[in-house]
Amino acid sequence: MTKKIILSGARPTGEIHLGNYFGALRNWVELQNDYDCHFFIADLHALTTGYADTEQLGEHVLSLMADYLACGLDPDKATIFLQSEVPEHAELFLLFAMNTPLSWLERCPTYKDQISQLSEKEITTYGFLGYPCLMTADILMYKADYVPVGEDQLPHLELSREIARRFNHLYAPVFPEPQPLLTKSRVLPGTDGRKMSKSYGNTISFADDPDTVAKKVMSMLTDPARIRKDDPGHPEVCSVYAFHKIFSEDEFEDIGERCRQGTIGCVACKRKLQERLLAFHRPIHETRTRLLQDRGELRRILRKGTMKAREKAAATLKEARAAMHLDY
Amino acid sequence: MTKKIILSGARPTGEIHLGNYFGALRNWVELQNDYDCHFFIADLHALTTGYADTEQLGEHVLSLMADYLACGLDPDKATIFLQSEVPEHAELFLLFAMNTPLSWLERCPTYKDQISQLSEKEITTYGFLGYPCLMTADILMYKADYVPVGEDQLPHLELSREIARRFNHLYAPVFPEPQPLLTKSRVLPGTDGRKMSKSYGNTISFADDPDTVAKKVMSMLTDPARIRKDDPGHPEVCSVYAFHKIFSEDEFEDIGERCRQGTIGCVACKRKLQERLLAFHRPIHETRTRLLQDRGELRRILRKGTMKAREKAAATLKEARAAMHLDY
Repeated sequence: MTKKIILSGARPTGEIHLGNYFGALRNWVELQNDYDCHFFIADLHALTTGYADTEQLGEHVLSLMADYLACGLDPDKATIFLQSEVPEHAELFLLFAMNTPLSWLERCPTYKDQISQLSEKEITTYGFLGYPCLMTADILMYKADYVPVGEDQLPHLELSREIARRFNHLYAPVFPEPQPLLTKSRVLPGTDGRKMSKSYGNTISFADDPDTVAKKVMSMLTDPARIRKDDPGHPEVCSVYAFHKIFSEDEFEDIGERCRQGTIGCVACKRKLQERLLAFHRPIHETRTRLLQDRGELRRILRKGTMKAREKAAATLKEARAAMHLDY
Repeated sequence: MTKKIILSGARPTGEIHLGNYFGALRNWVELQNDYDCHFFIADLHALTTGYADTEQLGEHVLSLMADYLACGLDPDKATIFLQSEVPEHAELFLLFAMNTPLSWLERCPTYKDQISQLSEKEITTYGFLGYPCLMTADILMYKADYVPVGEDQLPHLELSREIARRFNHLYAPVFPEPQPLLTKSRVLPGTDGRKMSKSYGNTISFADDPDTVAKKVMSMLTDPARIRKDDPGHPEVCSVYAFHKIFSEDEFEDIGERCRQGTIGCVACKRKLQERLLAFHRPIHETRTRLLQDRGELRRILRKGTMKAREKAAATLKEARAAMHLDY
């Protein structure tokens, strides 16, 4: 039986942090065993909001690639590639652009959200509006059956299915309608208890060295009502406890109990987390650091995956052009 | 001294008619002697309004190529190519899409015009809105100094210059700002006196055989106030006379005078035009007919020009990517 096809990607906007890892990447590492997986570095998508500031893009691409590999993505199992080096993405984007009613894009809820959230940047570009067309090209290029997404991405994926349906209806049934694969992701808050996000400055990333990680843990926000170490705590409002739930699975219930009783202080609790977190973090950090020391090799691995992606992309584009009678 | 660079193109939407020829093509034939000319078949642009009806596109591409050659475009002088076979156009379009404020496109006067004119079709697609971005990619890809345009195209070309300026400002001075080359085009009305246009059904095309041309001339609209052949006529309101101005340069003043005096009747006047028009039309018609009998050869010539265009396109795209730090 042929494996079902999956596609997902991330923008090279900086280093992968633990929030990204537990939200997506950890899941990808599992999926690559059972699916025909395509994971890409979405450098063209990075331009939708970051077009004016591209100097670090090359650095971020390599850094993301190192994170991918260090976290366990395996180029022998999955196709790992760089979006902008597969020109067929731009071509299929253009073809979809011609068939996609403007109103579909304007009504996209995340478009309106982002416009209001990022109003300080001049991002209302034509490319930004067309982001769902490019995303659809990414997905349909590999005829993905599933796209691992969070709830917030469901409207985009619905739009991709509409674009696929419209193409199939106008020309010929070339594309499957990609379904969401709602992932069992685990939410890890940032060090201040809010969502972990680079823009909040509350991340722990694999690029952080162990000392930095240790310091970040020590400065994590705990129960603000707990003044002395033998005051009873409220682990449910404590970001350290949220981390223990993931990194200390075998004893987090015990830790919670002791916090409530006031028999473990925040400093001791953080020391315990440091140990657990670093046991997980250190090998990935070391691998990514080592990988980044041989950029030629990193590039070679990425290029190999990209060549593999291009073969499939070229075949799909040919099929799409034939359906549109562009195969003169 | 290196020649200045020119780019222009036409959509493969049907056969070239005399209005197209005198409005643009005849001028191109002259320009190719003095400029480094790039003339293309804009099949991707045909999708902006014709995406739902592409079955004839391949036929129209070959037909336009035959018209190009029959009218005198010379593949040894100019680069004649097919837009969709140069994938760099889609790539540069995507890069410009990322940098182009949506408002620039929405404010484009021709966008609003066309939306209202073509309201019966569902053409308010994302690709249709982005037409100036694609046009800009076409022009800047070959670093054109001049674009032969009519007055109606000036706003588009101004937009292309703005996109070029913005790119050069954001990244590096890669692109020249293309200037309009206002052409000494001659306006030939349709057979009914209105603008010659396929949508009015008043065209004479090079695909018409001589009999059809002769019949079309006989049915042309003349001065409606002239009932009998010795009534005095008003050549300035007569479409036949407008044709004589172009096709009977040596005697149109005399013809006009005789019309006013009522000493030449409309039928005789049309017979004279038939003769003149067919002397011009027949060789081009015969050449295009002959060319279309060897489609393999037509394709080969088009492919050769397209390969030549790709070399230049690849070099420009590389330069644009490097300026944007996309040269990892």
